[in-house]
Amino acid sequence: MKHPGCWKMLTVAMCMALLGCLQAQELRGHVSVILLGATGDLARKYLWQGLFQLYLDEAGKDYSFSFHGAALTSTKQGQAFVAKVLESLSCPEDVAPDRCAELKGQFQRLSAYRHLATSEDYVALSKDIEAQVQHGGLREAGRIFYFSVPPFAYADIARNINSSCRPGPGAWLRVVLEKPFGHDHLSAQQLATELGGFFREEEMYRVDHYLGKQAVAQILPFRDQNRKALDGLWSRHHVERVEIIMKETVDAEGRTSFYEEYGVIRDVLQNHLTEVLTLVAMELPHNISSSESVLQHKLRAFRALRGLQKGSAVLGQYQAYSEQVRREQQRPDSFRSLTPTFAGVLVHMDNLRWEGVPFILMSGKALDERVGYVRILFRNQAYCVLSDERWVADQSQCLPRQIVFYIGHGELGSPAVLVSRNLFRPSLPSESWKELGARPGLRLFGRPLSDFYAYRPVREQDAYSVLISRIFHGRKDSFVTTEHLLASWGFWTPLLDSLAHEVPRLYPGGAENGHLLDFEFGGAQLCFSQQQPEQLVPGPGPAPMPSGFQVLKAKYRESPLISAWPEELIAKLADDIEATAVRAVRRFGTFHLALSGGSSPVPLFQQLATRHYGFPWAHTHLWLVDERCVPLWDPESNFQHLQTHLLQHIRVPYYNIHPMPVHLHQRLCAEEDQGAQTYASEISALVANSSFDLVLLGMGADGHTASLFPQSPSGLDGEQLVVLTESPSRPFQRMSLSLPLINRARKVAVLVMGRVKREITMLVSRVGHEPKKWPISGVLPSSGQLVWYMDYEAFLG
Amino acid sequence: MKHPGCWKMLTVAMCMALLGCLQAQELRGHVSVILLGATGDLARKYLWQGLFQLYLDEAGKDYSFSFHGAALTSTKQGQAFVAKVLESLSCPEDVAPDRCAELKGQFQRLSAYRHLATSEDYVALSKDIEAQVQHGGLREAGRIFYFSVPPFAYADIARNINSSCRPGPGAWLRVVLEKPFGHDHLSAQQLATELGGFFREEEMYRVDHYLGKQAVAQILPFRDQNRKALDGLWSRHHVERVEIIMKETVDAEGRTSFYEEYGVIRDVLQNHLTEVLTLVAMELPHNISSSESVLQHKLRAFRALRGLQKGSAVLGQYQAYSEQVRREQQRPDSFRSLTPTFAGVLVHMDNLRWEGVPFILMSGKALDERVGYVRILFRNQAYCVLSDERWVADQSQCLPRQIVFYIGHGELGSPAVLVSRNLFRPSLPSESWKELGARPGLRLFGRPLSDFYAYRPVREQDAYSVLISRIFHGRKDSFVTTEHLLASWGFWTPLLDSLAHEVPRLYPGGAENGHLLDFEFGGAQLCFSQQQPEQLVPGPGPAPMPSGFQVLKAKYRESPLISAWPEELIAKLADDIEATAVRAVRRFGTFHLALSGGSSPVPLFQQLATRHYGFPWAHTHLWLVDERCVPLWDPESNFQHLQTHLLQHIRVPYYNIHPMPVHLHQRLCAEEDQGAQTYASEISALVANSSFDLVLLGMGADGHTASLFPQSPSGLDGEQLVVLTESPSRPFQRMSLSLPLINRARKVAVLVMGRVKREITMLVSRVGHEPKKWPISGVLPSSGQLVWYMDYEAFLG
Repeated sequence: MKHPGCWKMLTVAMCMALLGCLQAQELRGHVSVILLGATGDLARKYLWQGLFQLYLDEAGKDYSFSFHGAALTSTKQGQAFVAKVLESLSCPEDVAPDRCAELKGQFQRLSAYRHLATSEDYVALSKDIEAQVQHGGLREAGRIFYFSVPPFAYADIARNINSSCRPGPGAWLRVVLEKPFGHDHLSAQQLATELGGFFREEEMYRVDHYLGKQAVAQILPFRDQNRKALDGLWSRHHVERVEIIMKETVDAEGRTSFYEEYGVIRDVLQNHLTEVLTLVAMELPHNISSSESVLQHKLRAFRALRGLQKGSAVLGQYQAYSEQVRREQQRPDSFRSLTPTFAGVLVHMDNLRWEGVPFILMSGKALDERVGYVRILFRNQAYCVLSDERWVADQSQCLPRQIVFYIGHGELGSPAVLVSRNLFRPSLPSESWKELGARPGLRLFGRPLSDFYAYRPVREQDAYSVLISRIFHGRKDSFVTTEHLLASWGFWTPLLDSLAHEVPRLYPGGAENGHLLDFEFGGAQLCFSQQQPEQLVPGPGPAPMPSGFQVLKAKYRESPLISAWPEELIAKLADDIEATAVRAVRRFGTFHLALSGGSSPVPLFQQLATRHYGFPWAHTHLWLVDERCVPLWDPESNFQHLQTHLLQHIRVPYYNIHPMPVHLHQRLCAEEDQGAQTYASEISALVANSSFDLVLLGMGADGHTASLFPQSPSGLDGEQLVVLTESPSRPFQRMSLSLPLINRARKVAVLVMGRVKREITMLVSRVGHEPKKWPISGVLPSSGQLVWYMDYEAFLG
Repeated sequence: MKHPGCWKMLTVAMCMALLGCLQAQELRGHVSVILLGATGDLARKYLWQGLFQLYLDEAGKDYSFSFHGAALTSTKQGQAFVAKVLESLSCPEDVAPDRCAELKGQFQRLSAYRHLATSEDYVALSKDIEAQVQHGGLREAGRIFYFSVPPFAYADIARNINSSCRPGPGAWLRVVLEKPFGHDHLSAQQLATELGGFFREEEMYRVDHYLGKQAVAQILPFRDQNRKALDGLWSRHHVERVEIIMKETVDAEGRTSFYEEYGVIRDVLQNHLTEVLTLVAMELPHNISSSESVLQHKLRAFRALRGLQKGSAVLGQYQAYSEQVRREQQRPDSFRSLTPTFAGVLVHMDNLRWEGVPFILMSGKALDERVGYVRILFRNQAYCVLSDERWVADQSQCLPRQIVFYIGHGELGSPAVLVSRNLFRPSLPSESWKELGARPGLRLFGRPLSDFYAYRPVREQDAYSVLISRIFHGRKDSFVTTEHLLASWGFWTPLLDSLAHEVPRLYPGGAENGHLLDFEFGGAQLCFSQQQPEQLVPGPGPAPMPSGFQVLKAKYRESPLISAWPEELIAKLADDIEATAVRAVRRFGTFHLALSGGSSPVPLFQQLATRHYGFPWAHTHLWLVDERCVPLWDPESNFQHLQTHLLQHIRVPYYNIHPMPVHLHQRLCAEEDQGAQTYASEISALVANSSFDLVLLGMGADGHTASLFPQSPSGLDGEQLVVLTESPSRPFQRMSLSLPLINRARKVAVLVMGRVKREITMLVSRVGHEPKKWPISGVLPSSGQLVWYMDYEAFLG
């Protein structure tokens, strides 16, 4: 190794060496790569090798290079370390040993270690680079700073680079950042803001090394080159499920201080698996070589992700984990960690291409095998007439059809792209992917390898080598942009928050896990297939439930009362509504249903949408009980609520839907627009005798119902069917059915849920007919039926 | 056998015999069964045995019986035939031989043959029955006439029964009819009307013997007894597909005269498989022992069937068939039959429970095995964490989950009910169903038998025995009502019509068929998986297509013209609309699209709904170019078209949909309701500058466009944006965007398709700006772009 003080001499020597194999006039410029943390583990294992590969790939072309290993390590130790690493570099297989030694020699001459700590050091570094460029008669093309350092060191380094080490005008700066990029949405945002003070967005390259894995990096090119075959297949009409899996056999021993902070979701799912998910799910840009276009489409895929809830995930922890934490972090014997080391998460996309297709993300430590893959399983849409024992393996359309991007390890032991032979023969770039040889006896995903067209890379490349090349080529789409990072945290943080106190299922590890971790999904919910054999980790369990899920029948204000736990109450109410609807349609041909806004009916809407297949929606007219004076598309609008939770999922004809006309002539509830009168005449015209078949009401903590508030000057009596009212809370203006209209209904159901209603429930049970004080007390259908539906919390407190 | 003349003596003897095992005071009455066609094949094989079984089951209870075998056969021959049949009857396995002989003797004494031809014979029969009842001191409970005769004989017999052989008041009449019940909807209706002249609906029992097969008869009871387990499973959320299969190894040899008339769809699918389909798909009545309720629910299932089209079926014919027909029916050597002996049909249900679930109906002759089954395959909704070679057979939720009603034959050789062990342990009535013993090595539906909870009947019963018992008990739900029959023909007839000239694929028969008959579905289309190796049967093939599917670009009326074959034209137009939409949303945040009515845009709507996942529907506003003055829910309404073919399949927010207000204040396009003005102001308010981003027009054969007809007094010029117009054809009143408004659009696309447009296309290509004569010639966007989309037939003729 060269002496660190003699940069100037060095520079000449380096340039001479480099120029020896280049024609000077072709050089586009000089690139300096500064590897920060050059003596760390990652640098030793991957980064130096990646830089060497960059040199091999690019130095023969238009650029000259210098490589600066930097760290806080003392110069002497650092030099020794780097010298050793450089000596251990390897050439691609097809390079002869002599030539390899020669190339390594060239690279070694271009590489040096320097101690980089103070701001003066950075100033000096910059000057050295400038001098080096000048002496070589070169033009500076750019500088790459690769941060292979812990996040706490970022800010200092970033400040120093920004203030003292930017290249001159015309040359670019690229800073490469390694995860973790925060711990949740807030911390990621803070970190991003901090870095944003030093670097422009286009200067930052956040590494997710999964994006450099060859099989992952092949997803978009594969989709692009097989557009024709995939065009008809790549959607909910054909895809049964997508599995994005990273299984590990190792556990977290020795790394528990990091792992306790992160857990498997932050460690693997939020970044690696999510990146893969977006590559599979995104709309394919016309031109995948445009980074900007790829990033835009990826971001759109993020926006289509349906929000996760507690029920979207199952968590596990290998049995030895807590003990490892106790040992490594000197925790007391009583300590039990809640950090998950295993997670299965069910993701759905809310767009027309993927609606309903389960994306299963799974990762865990201490599992039975080490393997990573994305598997797209297509639906079986064939019927094979021959009895199944006569199917011929590689021909039948009834055998599974799948495409697998095999990221690595596992039975196969290398990256691969697998396409079932009954799908299509894929096109892959022959210079970089070749067909896999036969492996008799090897079965993958339930089928012999011979069932697949199977390809592996001509040359296996480490992810970091791939990414370093992409940094050099400015391929920002292989990296995580700030917007993209925040979108990902925005997606994962609510789940992480909701799971914070969840007790993971313990598993023994390895093949011993058996079926303990298998999970199932129904709708958006995920759960373990097997019941928990016993509660092994003490923790806040689910609230105790009463042994019998009974529905209690009683009287309230002299009308029938039905009370139960929320789930049973909603199920009962939905059943009753359907029965009423079926009767009405049988008798009158239509069913006129008026629904209230607010959050209470949401589970009812969901119940109706997903469990009541016999509901006569085609003959149902939907009316609003009340509405806020906001445009219909406002998130505050009751109608918007109804649309999101009910209308989207059922098929009510357009003209059977009757939103309140609160937004006429581009203004909200103006008296002169006569919205209330218009709604009233629509009701009179369509609803026989203006008697709704069913009106669903709620009850406010102040005794209001519909949008009829205490002391309301209108709507509590009189002739008006629909009225404009004032609410004590925002938005103040409302439109509401009047009490006299409500009381003409054949049936009125009042749904009251939650402990917060306890007090008003008690109060109203005792008062008489005083609608001015408590509008709910004025609900008394003149010839119809009134039924109260209260959950135990509202009724019993 | 007794002498046929001595009814009176006989009667006494019979009653004595019967009363010997009954207590006279408990008898509810006497039942006479008249088997018409008593000497036929069906009678010999099944019906006499069924009547014996009825006697065994019921005669010990409340009724007395007499059995009258009747036919046109001479008395002597008939008696001999019947005597022989009665001698061959068998008792259930658990009856000792002595007891069996005794029971057979009793039955023989109650049974007699009589020649029944003329109306006098019927009068005599009735008198004999009355005398028999009277002499026995019995009360007549009812008469069952079982028609085991060819349909051409029905009318005569029915007339005779109705006029001469009805029982007296207080006793019931049941006539049992055997298929075929017509050949299509019309003939079935004629037959039903004819029979309806003689019998009341409740008197008719149309037999579909599949409904008596034990596994089929168990479908509803199984669903009922396992309600709890099935409730969450029996829907599109969990069912992947339903297969309803009847495979035969025999061919039609010896029966071609019948088969040529019917073919496999009429022979098997229209009746047997459709019956099974309704039992699987229908909503389960609360009380399945109510015939009325079951029939009602079944009928509703029929109504939910989505109409079939040509593309819903694949047809085959075994290779030897035509030769067999030629031989058996003395047809010339040149004769080739088009009758299908194999059919696969894809059925969908248009309801929320089953939407999207494929129901596959398949039957054929000369296949590789004889077997019948209904298989409900559930979706795999589990992820198993262990590598798949470690799954344990009977535990993993990742193994297939299925419920099979095994109708008979096949590997199993008996009826059975199979439920995958990873689903649930089913409940079956233990008195009639028992668990199947182990059958090592036996695999069914891809899994070893041990993977299933498997049940078989305690006592195998012939379908006719089951049905005869149900006739006796008046279980009309095991039979085909007139309404039900017509619904079935209403469903199948359009398909049969559309396939009438279709050339079936030839298949060699048996295992030789290989994968030749395998078929696949995508959406509502079905096709063979393998390309037809060669066209073996001459027949009207598909129209020859040009070798290249090119899109031609040219000019028409000085604007760009795009011409292609219909499919490519629609694809191109849809692409262009999406591109326009994406650009508009990017620039303005919204896309305002005005669509025309008529049938031309339907394939466009379908293309947009099923292929354009990236379409920004959430930001698209849909407007109508024109509307007929009918209510929006009228089938003639343009909006209704739009709803059916587009809106149902995409997600445009409610408030972005803008139907034309042709139906205000419960009247149609009244001037004083100012609908046109209202629509115009809605446009002005929401569409910047009243410039639609895209207007899609058509062109009528008279040169009209939108609803602007030649010589229209309004809409061709002037200030009005939206106008009321008159059409030369019904419905006369229309509302339409005006030419000046259309011409403000940023882009106007005119879609013209079909040979019928050829003439006007030629004409309009030559005329100038003459909107009064040819409104289409007035389409000329002032600052926007006009593009013509014409298929080759419209453009090149």
